[in-house]
Amino acid sequence: MTPAVVLLSGGLDSAVTLAIAKRDGFEPHALSFEYGQRHRIEVQSARRVGESFGVRDHRFAHIDLRVFGGSALTDDIAVPAHDSGGDQIPVTYVPARNTIFLSYALAFAEVIDARDIFIGVNAVDYSGYPDCRPDFLRAFEQLASLATKAGVGGTRFNIHAPLLELSKAEIIREGVKLGVDFTLTHSCYDPVPDRAACGRCDSCQLRLKGFAEAGLTDPIPYA
Amino acid sequence: MTPAVVLLSGGLDSAVTLAIAKRDGFEPHALSFEYGQRHRIEVQSARRVGESFGVRDHRFAHIDLRVFGGSALTDDIAVPAHDSGGDQIPVTYVPARNTIFLSYALAFAEVIDARDIFIGVNAVDYSGYPDCRPDFLRAFEQLASLATKAGVGGTRFNIHAPLLELSKAEIIREGVKLGVDFTLTHSCYDPVPDRAACGRCDSCQLRLKGFAEAGLTDPIPYA
Repeated sequence: MTPAVVLLSGGLDSAVTLAIAKRDGFEPHALSFEYGQRHRIEVQSARRVGESFGVRDHRFAHIDLRVFGGSALTDDIAVPAHDSGGDQIPVTYVPARNTIFLSYALAFAEVIDARDIFIGVNAVDYSGYPDCRPDFLRAFEQLASLATKAGVGGTRFNIHAPLLELSKAEIIREGVKLGVDFTLTHSCYDPVPDRAACGRCDSCQLRLKGFAEAGLTDPIPYA
Repeated sequence: MTPAVVLLSGGLDSAVTLAIAKRDGFEPHALSFEYGQRHRIEVQSARRVGESFGVRDHRFAHIDLRVFGGSALTDDIAVPAHDSGGDQIPVTYVPARNTIFLSYALAFAEVIDARDIFIGVNAVDYSGYPDCRPDFLRAFEQLASLATKAGVGGTRFNIHAPLLELSKAEIIREGVKLGVDFTLTHSCYDPVPDRAACGRCDSCQLRLKGFAEAGLTDPIPYA
C-alpha cells in the first residue's frame, strides 16, 4: 500500500478525510498536534478516531503556538459565540496554522517516504481563512517539491484536500457512507467543563447546521 | 523602524544575519527554536547574541522534531566527523527543517505585522541541503503571500537570505565589519561535555576553514 500522511485533529472534517484516504487505497500515517489549544479534548478524539480506522502509525507533535499569540484559540481571549459570515477573517484564525501543520506533515512524509498528504480543509465554510484556499494548497505542493530530498530526486508531492469544495452536510453524508463514527469526533472551540460541546461557537454552529441539512442528528452531547 | 523577524540559532551565520538586518534599518524580532537538538548550547548562544544586539523581542519556540526522527541532529545516531563534500545530502539534514522554521517565522511576522523575514541559509557551504536553495526561498515567499491575512490584503512577504551566495570567510569578514562578537556564537553539532566545540564535525570544520581563509583566529574554545 502507498503510505500517506493524514492530518488528524479529532474533528469531524479530518475524520472524514482519513476515511477517504483509506477508501482511496492509501495506508494512512496520522499526525496530530497539541498546540496549546483550548479544545485539548480534540487530541483525545484524534487518538480514538485513528484507532477506529486501524491506524498503526499515529504521531503527536507538541508545538506551542501561544509563543506568538494572535488567536482566540490559543490566547486568553474570549471565543465569540458566532463570528462567521461576511468577508472578515474570524478571530479564531490561528496565524500561519495550516502552513505550520503542512510543514510538519512534510517532514513526516519525508521520513516515511510518502509523497501524499491529506488535509481536511474546506473552502466553503472557512472562506475567511486564507490558508484554506486552493491557491495556498497548490503553492505548498510547489514548495514541498523544492524543500525535500525526495523533491530533488524528482518526486512531486500531492496535497489532497478532498473536502475542499464540499458543504458540511456533504462532508457528513460522505462520512456516513464511509463508516465514520461521529460520536468519536469533536469540533467545539469552547467545550464546557463536563466536555460537552457548547453548541454556540462557530464550529458547533457549522456542525449542527451540517447535520440538520444532511437530515441527521449529531450524536455527540451538547451543553 | 520597520519590524522584521530574524531566525536566530546562536550560530555564526544567524548572528551575522541579525547584524545585517540591523544595518539595513530593520527592527529585529528574533525567533529561536528548541527542537531536541543535541547542540542545546546553541539556544543559550542565541539568547546572548540577541542581547548583544539589543533585541527586545526574542521568542523561543519549543518544537519536537524527534517525533519524526530521520537526522543525526535529532536522533540517537552518531554525528559523523565530517560528511560534506560530494553531492550527497548530509546525514545531519533535518527533514523539512527550514520549511518548519520559516512557517513559524511567518506566524510571528503575521502577529507583529512584519513582512520581512531574515534567515541565515547559505547555498555555498550547504549545497547538499534542498531547503537552502534560492528556488526554495522564492517558493516560500509565494506561499507566504497566499497563507496569510496580510497577503490577502496585498502584502508581499520578503524572505531575506543575505548570506546565500557568500563563502564562510566572506560571512566572517562581514560579521567583523558589523561588530559581531563571535565569542558568543556556537556552531558545533557535537560539543564535548565541558561545552568546547569538538573541532571535527562538519559544522566545526566549515567554521575553522572560514576563519582560516579570512586570516583570523576563531575565538571560541575547541576540545
